[in-house]
Amino acid sequence: MIIGIIGGGQLARMMALAGIPLGMRFIFLDPAEDACASALGEHLCGEYDDRELLNYMAEKADVVTYEFENVPASAIEYLNDKVGVAPSAEALATARDRLNEKNLFRELGIPTVPFATVDSFGDLQLAVEEIGLPAILKTRVFGYDGKGQVLLRDEADLQQAWDKLKAIPLILEGFASFQREISIVSVRGHDGEIRFYPLSENVHRDGILNTSESLPDDPKQSVAEEYARRTLERLDYVGVLAIEFFDMGKGLIVNEMAPRVHNSGHWTIEGALTSQFENHIRAVAKLPLGSTDADGYARMINFIGEIPEIHDLLSNETLHLHHYDKKPKPGRKVGHATYWSTTKIEHDST
Amino acid sequence: MIIGIIGGGQLARMMALAGIPLGMRFIFLDPAEDACASALGEHLCGEYDDRELLNYMAEKADVVTYEFENVPASAIEYLNDKVGVAPSAEALATARDRLNEKNLFRELGIPTVPFATVDSFGDLQLAVEEIGLPAILKTRVFGYDGKGQVLLRDEADLQQAWDKLKAIPLILEGFASFQREISIVSVRGHDGEIRFYPLSENVHRDGILNTSESLPDDPKQSVAEEYARRTLERLDYVGVLAIEFFDMGKGLIVNEMAPRVHNSGHWTIEGALTSQFENHIRAVAKLPLGSTDADGYARMINFIGEIPEIHDLLSNETLHLHHYDKKPKPGRKVGHATYWSTTKIEHDST
Repeated sequence: MIIGIIGGGQLARMMALAGIPLGMRFIFLDPAEDACASALGEHLCGEYDDRELLNYMAEKADVVTYEFENVPASAIEYLNDKVGVAPSAEALATARDRLNEKNLFRELGIPTVPFATVDSFGDLQLAVEEIGLPAILKTRVFGYDGKGQVLLRDEADLQQAWDKLKAIPLILEGFASFQREISIVSVRGHDGEIRFYPLSENVHRDGILNTSESLPDDPKQSVAEEYARRTLERLDYVGVLAIEFFDMGKGLIVNEMAPRVHNSGHWTIEGALTSQFENHIRAVAKLPLGSTDADGYARMINFIGEIPEIHDLLSNETLHLHHYDKKPKPGRKVGHATYWSTTKIEHDST
Repeated sequence: MIIGIIGGGQLARMMALAGIPLGMRFIFLDPAEDACASALGEHLCGEYDDRELLNYMAEKADVVTYEFENVPASAIEYLNDKVGVAPSAEALATARDRLNEKNLFRELGIPTVPFATVDSFGDLQLAVEEIGLPAILKTRVFGYDGKGQVLLRDEADLQQAWDKLKAIPLILEGFASFQREISIVSVRGHDGEIRFYPLSENVHRDGILNTSESLPDDPKQSVAEEYARRTLERLDYVGVLAIEFFDMGKGLIVNEMAPRVHNSGHWTIEGALTSQFENHIRAVAKLPLGSTDADGYARMINFIGEIPEIHDLLSNETLHLHHYDKKPKPGRKVGHATYWSTTKIEHDST
């Protein structure tokens, strides 16, 4: 079976590393000449909406998936008419726009921060009146790793934030004073079977995920699973879905979802019987899902900008290296390491 | 770092799958157009002694290793003059010839079956007088998966066996009535550090390995480690070395060694903290070795000829599939599965 992936970055790379042992072959579409997944399959180097390349992929691949949500919707719809795409165009359209996403969560009874659309400076002033400050002004689409958002602390911040972001449809979101950030990585098969991984606790630094740690037997597992189940079923979802939450102590508030494998699930490579990457490929390929049971404790740390000295890293016996073979660049995710142990890992081990 | 591998079969494929997450890239030399490792790197399609391709590999690769011992020695020596090769040409020359191998074991005080070289029918008659029957007549080189050997039960078998095998230098080996076949997979780093995996118990069918099962805490672990250590140190070995033994109850008799990753170590992908494939790459790349600690119980079964129905396989929650993406063919290893569990696996689970 040949699987097409829109995007050829580290998520595509790790999907291929998981899919090749199942006998899969891969084709990637990515405009970057040095796309790091290209070591693992055929690399179509071009824009995501290049019709010729999309036609080629549709002809060769048995099914297409994607590694990020900022794929042009038209490309997915075009591919879907020619070859199956999973997760569906609807799931992608929902997840790629913060407004659609929040409206869906509201419809499903999943608590969100207060939010309002902002299409003009007047909208922004009204929204601030309604929601209060602090609040976060975000682009509805194309945001990632803290990009496309500005924190508003007081009225004086409004004009500058508006000037910075006004080019794109915006959303104002209330600021949640959370106890911790957690996420649930779930997977739904083409036959509707759903499985959940244990929760991850996530720590961001400068807007970029820094560490994720598995949370076996966390008291918030069941409510997170319930929210994820509603979302998966409402979207008739196929593949891995990650949902990020703010844990407010009493309950969870949803932050956002990603219709794809997710950085907070990287620890499942070592920490679970079947990784999120393999389960995504199994779902997309209409194969039975693998066990999401997690044994022991896992803690993932992202390498941002550059990989530390490899001899030092590999001298640590509990560390598993995932080098993305990407050019070093400030703010770029270039690799990660997972510390895995049968016993709980002390935080100073990183 | 770029690693060249002589051979592009499943062992090269699994070395690449283990090395890519360390940031390695791969070049394979294999005459088969559909070499199954080619999905994971650059495939030089040509004979193993093709000087032009060897020159290309030597120029691009930082180090070269191999996936099987029937590489022409001249190719390894040629490469070694231009770029490092590990394991060394000496290790390869020893392991590829049953006579050299047995002489080394004898020198190191490691018990072998009785053996004698056979270069003529007269030699064969003398060797049978000395060793007795039953005995096994084997080609000294190029044997694998039970190929190149004939069991001699009585005098009447001699002429037919001689006629079948006489083209190549031969060795007659005494027949060992063993209790079980076991192997030890070991690895030695470029700095001399040595690590051992738990023993494997191996069951062959029609001369081909059928199943391997990890043997945590086996009473024969320490003697096998001692024999492996002598061999590794004597050869100043770098990389993974597998040694197969007959367990005679009272002690071990060495059968043969393989200067490479080995089928009986495939279970280490799931069953050990660092797989044999990753540790071989680490050793060859002069990186620190990873932990060979094995958690739980692993049982590997080879798929010979063809892969069973994939939906059925993946419905088994304790099964991990390794599909080699090779054309089905009787007697060909086309994949394997590993059953892994924290508790001992009952044999009927396969």
